[in-house]
Amino acid sequence: MLKDRYLSNDPFAWQIYELMRSKPIISPHGHIDVKVLLENKAFTNPVELLITPDHYITRLLYSQGISYEALGLDGSKKDPKQIWQLFADNYYLFQATPSRIWLQEILFTLFGVNEILNSNNAAAIYEVIEAKLKTKEFLPQSLFNSFNIEVLATTDSTSADLADHKQLQASGLSGRVIPTFRPDDISDPQRSDWKDGLSRLSKQSGVEVSSFANLLAALRKQRDHFIAHGATATDHGVFSAQTLKLDKNEAQGLFEKLLAGDLSQANVEMFRAAILFEHGVMCAEDGLVMQLHPGSLRNYDQKIFEKFGADKGFDIPVSLTFTKELQPLLNEVGSSKKFKMVLYTLDESTYTRELAPLAGVYPSIRLGPPWWFLDSFNGTNRWRDAVTDTAGFYNTVGFIDDTRAFCSVPVRHDLARRADAAYLAKKVNEGLLTQGEALSLAPQLAYQLSKDFFNL
Amino acid sequence: MLKDRYLSNDPFAWQIYELMRSKPIISPHGHIDVKVLLENKAFTNPVELLITPDHYITRLLYSQGISYEALGLDGSKKDPKQIWQLFADNYYLFQATPSRIWLQEILFTLFGVNEILNSNNAAAIYEVIEAKLKTKEFLPQSLFNSFNIEVLATTDSTSADLADHKQLQASGLSGRVIPTFRPDDISDPQRSDWKDGLSRLSKQSGVEVSSFANLLAALRKQRDHFIAHGATATDHGVFSAQTLKLDKNEAQGLFEKLLAGDLSQANVEMFRAAILFEHGVMCAEDGLVMQLHPGSLRNYDQKIFEKFGADKGFDIPVSLTFTKELQPLLNEVGSSKKFKMVLYTLDESTYTRELAPLAGVYPSIRLGPPWWFLDSFNGTNRWRDAVTDTAGFYNTVGFIDDTRAFCSVPVRHDLARRADAAYLAKKVNEGLLTQGEALSLAPQLAYQLSKDFFNL
Amino acid sequence: MLKDRYLSNDPFAWQIYELMRSKPIISPHGHIDVKVLLENKAFTNPVELLITPDHYITRLLYSQGISYEALGLDGSKKDPKQIWQLFADNYYLFQATPSRIWLQEILFTLFGVNEILNSNNAAAIYEVIEAKLKTKEFLPQSLFNSFNIEVLATTDSTSADLADHKQLQASGLSGRVIPTFRPDDISDPQRSDWKDGLSRLSKQSGVEVSSFANLLAALRKQRDHFIAHGATATDHGVFSAQTLKLDKNEAQGLFEKLLAGDLSQANVEMFRAAILFEHGVMCAEDGLVMQLHPGSLRNYDQKIFEKFGADKGFDIPVSLTFTKELQPLLNEVGSSKKFKMVLYTLDESTYTRELAPLAGVYPSIRLGPPWWFLDSFNGTNRWRDAVTDTAGFYNTVGFIDDTRAFCSVPVRHDLARRADAAYLAKKVNEGLLTQGEALSLAPQLAYQLSKDFFNL
Repeated sequence: MLKDRYLSNDPFAWQIYELMRSKPIISPHGHIDVKVLLENKAFTNPVELLITPDHYITRLLYSQGISYEALGLDGSKKDPKQIWQLFADNYYLFQATPSRIWLQEILFTLFGVNEILNSNNAAAIYEVIEAKLKTKEFLPQSLFNSFNIEVLATTDSTSADLADHKQLQASGLSGRVIPTFRPDDISDPQRSDWKDGLSRLSKQSGVEVSSFANLLAALRKQRDHFIAHGATATDHGVFSAQTLKLDKNEAQGLFEKLLAGDLSQANVEMFRAAILFEHGVMCAEDGLVMQLHPGSLRNYDQKIFEKFGADKGFDIPVSLTFTKELQPLLNEVGSSKKFKMVLYTLDESTYTRELAPLAGVYPSIRLGPPWWFLDSFNGTNRWRDAVTDTAGFYNTVGFIDDTRAFCSVPVRHDLARRADAAYLAKKVNEGLLTQGEALSLAPQLAYQLSKDFFNL
Repeated sequence: MLKDRYLSNDPFAWQIYELMRSKPIISPHGHIDVKVLLENKAFTNPVELLITPDHYITRLLYSQGISYEALGLDGSKKDPKQIWQLFADNYYLFQATPSRIWLQEILFTLFGVNEILNSNNAAAIYEVIEAKLKTKEFLPQSLFNSFNIEVLATTDSTSADLADHKQLQASGLSGRVIPTFRPDDISDPQRSDWKDGLSRLSKQSGVEVSSFANLLAALRKQRDHFIAHGATATDHGVFSAQTLKLDKNEAQGLFEKLLAGDLSQANVEMFRAAILFEHGVMCAEDGLVMQLHPGSLRNYDQKIFEKFGADKGFDIPVSLTFTKELQPLLNEVGSSKKFKMVLYTLDESTYTRELAPLAGVYPSIRLGPPWWFLDSFNGTNRWRDAVTDTAGFYNTVGFIDDTRAFCSVPVRHDLARRADAAYLAKKVNEGLLTQGEALSLAPQLAYQLSKDFFNL
Repeated sequence: MLKDRYLSNDPFAWQIYELMRSKPIISPHGHIDVKVLLENKAFTNPVELLITPDHYITRLLYSQGISYEALGLDGSKKDPKQIWQLFADNYYLFQATPSRIWLQEILFTLFGVNEILNSNNAAAIYEVIEAKLKTKEFLPQSLFNSFNIEVLATTDSTSADLADHKQLQASGLSGRVIPTFRPDDISDPQRSDWKDGLSRLSKQSGVEVSSFANLLAALRKQRDHFIAHGATATDHGVFSAQTLKLDKNEAQGLFEKLLAGDLSQANVEMFRAAILFEHGVMCAEDGLVMQLHPGSLRNYDQKIFEKFGADKGFDIPVSLTFTKELQPLLNEVGSSKKFKMVLYTLDESTYTRELAPLAGVYPSIRLGPPWWFLDSFNGTNRWRDAVTDTAGFYNTVGFIDDTRAFCSVPVRHDLARRADAAYLAKKVNEGLLTQGEALSLAPQLAYQLSKDFFNL
């Protein structure tokens, strides 16, 4: 691998990148399971490490006719070497995709493998990885310490007791691991576990959720609990960005109807919008940073969901709008001193149309970097080109890895830094930035913007 | 013309292109009239060959105040030399458009004209073309044989008897010409010829379309008839991609209402969605590849339509979504072994938002290349950049010429190959592909992907 | 500053730009206050000249926590030197944005300042500007004469008496200043000043607006009044592009309901669509060019609007469609000899989907260049790439500065010319244009297209 890969052979891009590379990782949003770090068990094999948990990889294999059974996703005990070989045989499918780049970077930077995986070298590479996984250096905590992570945020459900986090914080890791409050289960009455979620919240918070006012009170207690365990942010995986201000009586009436089972589409959507509004108001009160991840239709395929569960690649984005949807909330708290919100999107048509104009005027709003399907070199270029004109660099936050795959954390940050370095160097060449400005932006994009905005 | 035109002066792009150039043409979707080939009459003049049938050209002339009467589109007998001169005088309007590039390529590769058309050389070029059109080498069948076409699919209506196709298949062409089943006339109750379409289908299939069940039975018979004549695909020029699963009674009730004249918007849309769903289910049964071309508002201008008919440039795209619309069908047959679907769009905001995520997980889905207004160098670049990250190269099919203009078939394929070669070379330069990978992709994009997916 | 800045170091881009640079400025749409020119008072200081009236600048400062009070937008008398210093201290926020580029160009070309503004040089630069503003050469009329403006259009409300324009036309400026008819106040019954607008119109036109027919008659009189004062265009800052053809009775019934206070959403939207249709029909009669600026949700934040008024950066675009919306109007007058319409958008997904196909066939339609948040180097590149394939260059108009900041007029045109020159040179490099064609397009894009289409 070339040292200056993905930097367009531009020596100035390398200079920018070097400044970025020296910075520790700030990861304010991701999906690493805190248990992996706490239990600190060795990863058993390359498949369990790199393939099974990565729905970016399994979905693309599925799209070319490789069954989830063949990949062991049905819980059957397949020989991991066989799965690895199957993956290698079909590795050409990933040509030019981010998954391919991330995987090669992991092979190279973590395991010292400097070859592109293929049918012939698959078995040998399997053995190299497997051998390293047995060493102390590849235990999760050792890896964490070697990754130069300053803060890593996990995602935790409404009623989590966070005992795991408390324990882990005592374990002496070289960086902080903090929870994020994600109240999705109690925010959508259409979820089959909505009432269970309310019960769990009652139990955990000690506040009986018998009214809308009590729901808010219980949420406030849990938010405080999260804050006490280091949380600085919430996250909301909503279908729509719609917010709605209801007065107390309206909210209570609606909540009663829903509890009584009147789950009409209108009631459901009104509740989702009203509770999202209230989450925002609470953020303005307690200072947790509100992250909005709207627009994915989850568990799109019923048969797949029933057989293999969630997060199997069958989450498909929908057309998205923000302007009218966020107006009630932003009119309430958009200029409040403590309110902070990060907006993400899967619909690129919102970049220049809505997101940059909103972030370019509201002091509370920052734009999250390209999310999910958009997290790539192409995606980063399109995003920066689209939002910078109107929002500048300082109304964005730094890279978000959003990953479930622990080993990909440093690799994803490294590639995002390379993409940004190449981007800044290009702007210098175009005469839109001076070299000095590009160099001053480097640590901001790689580190400081996220550290500051997420209060880390 | 430079041999390596449009290849960015990149010698490696030329190397990729050479591999593509050696491949025969697979054209699985287009609008060549089978009669042109069957009758094998000489084209009468350059205008009839290149201008009148090409609504890309006539619409742009109209947009600058040149009437369709002046172009002879009203059926009046205008002097073709005069029309050609008018075209040449206004040829500057086409600067940097695909129409201009295609036309210059035709002039150069077919007629040996190596000049840009203008007012002064118009008459001379007219004569060069006219003289060649009189020769045996320029008869439609001779041209076909010289174009190195392996398969050319036409588009044929629901109740076509396909006698023309049968006759043509006996004529000894060097490549196959096959029909495509396009049941648009019976799929939209709002069409003025809907009931006529049902009658034609009854007559041709021998199944009296007296019920919804019989409609499906008649369609199955016609599909078999098409398959017997070599068809491997269907095509659906729908307004929306909405699909809907109805049970038999619901479908029959709806069909009765429509037959009785109750053409409310709700009924019409429900039928369109229900029949599109049924077409999909039939594709999953008989293995015809389903092509979806949604999102064009046809015959936008009533006066133009009344005076000059369809396909006169007045088809304007609308905002499009796929996710919720295709969910009923994909939940039914999205993972079926025999189901295959190719998705096209005129709304680029669907590339990363919906199409790549769908094609990146469903084994039945492939993405069609940029369609209609998007078929250009810019369009190809935007499309590849957008969809490759999530869907890879192997969830696409090869180039589709979609043309009514016979002479533009080889030219369009050649330019698409040049665009793809330049694209692959660029990815190699960016470090996202190895040279070996790019070379292995070349024949796939130019030939194999379409051949395989369309069962050709 | 480099002479060939923003031209990609391409000598041929410079050659194109030189042809553009020699052309006078045609500015057919903007927001310069005619009083500024008429009264010809010296600008008092750099803040009043460059910051306070420029909501591109103040909104970005606000987005990073700098209050509008601190910028003096609340009407309090702040020390302008202090505001200037605050701006300079935060000037890094504008890195790579158009505002930054425009400001540096103004500093350089108007005030001879060849440094990037920063905390240290802020006071000195303030003094340079302030000193120049006191000289005769920097009076508004002197500046106007030095800007090489051939025509500058202002924006004027429905019932303007245009006395200012009449006076100014007698003042001997080296270029024409003409009004534009913008009937927004009487077009939206939801505006709090709608009835006042009708009263003003009655008074100014001398036609009592007691019926819908009289409303049209009064509008016709005012249009004639504008035409008599040199106007060649109208402008419509509508929320939606929806048009609707009502017969006289329907329109009269609707108008009566609205006058009686029945402002249901349905009535309001119907009236907006009906009056937009009528404006179009009147344009087809009297030849004023219709400009459509849809899709901005104005005064988004109620508190900001109440405290600081309109145009404070809180106008946020919404998702936009044109196809069905314009169909009624285009079916009525789309091919009329005298009808001319320029379409603008804030939703880039409409470029290839709707705008280029419409402009690529209707002789009445031209595309306006990137508007507002999209007016930048990136924005221009995306726009040209998107629309040229389908609409060509000749279905666009030249640059529109749309500015309230007088000194930015020449600078914005100059940068648009540089962007276009770089774009044309790139197309020559790609083989899509010949050098001769690019050179022939230069004066068209910089001057002639706007001059011709706006009848200037």
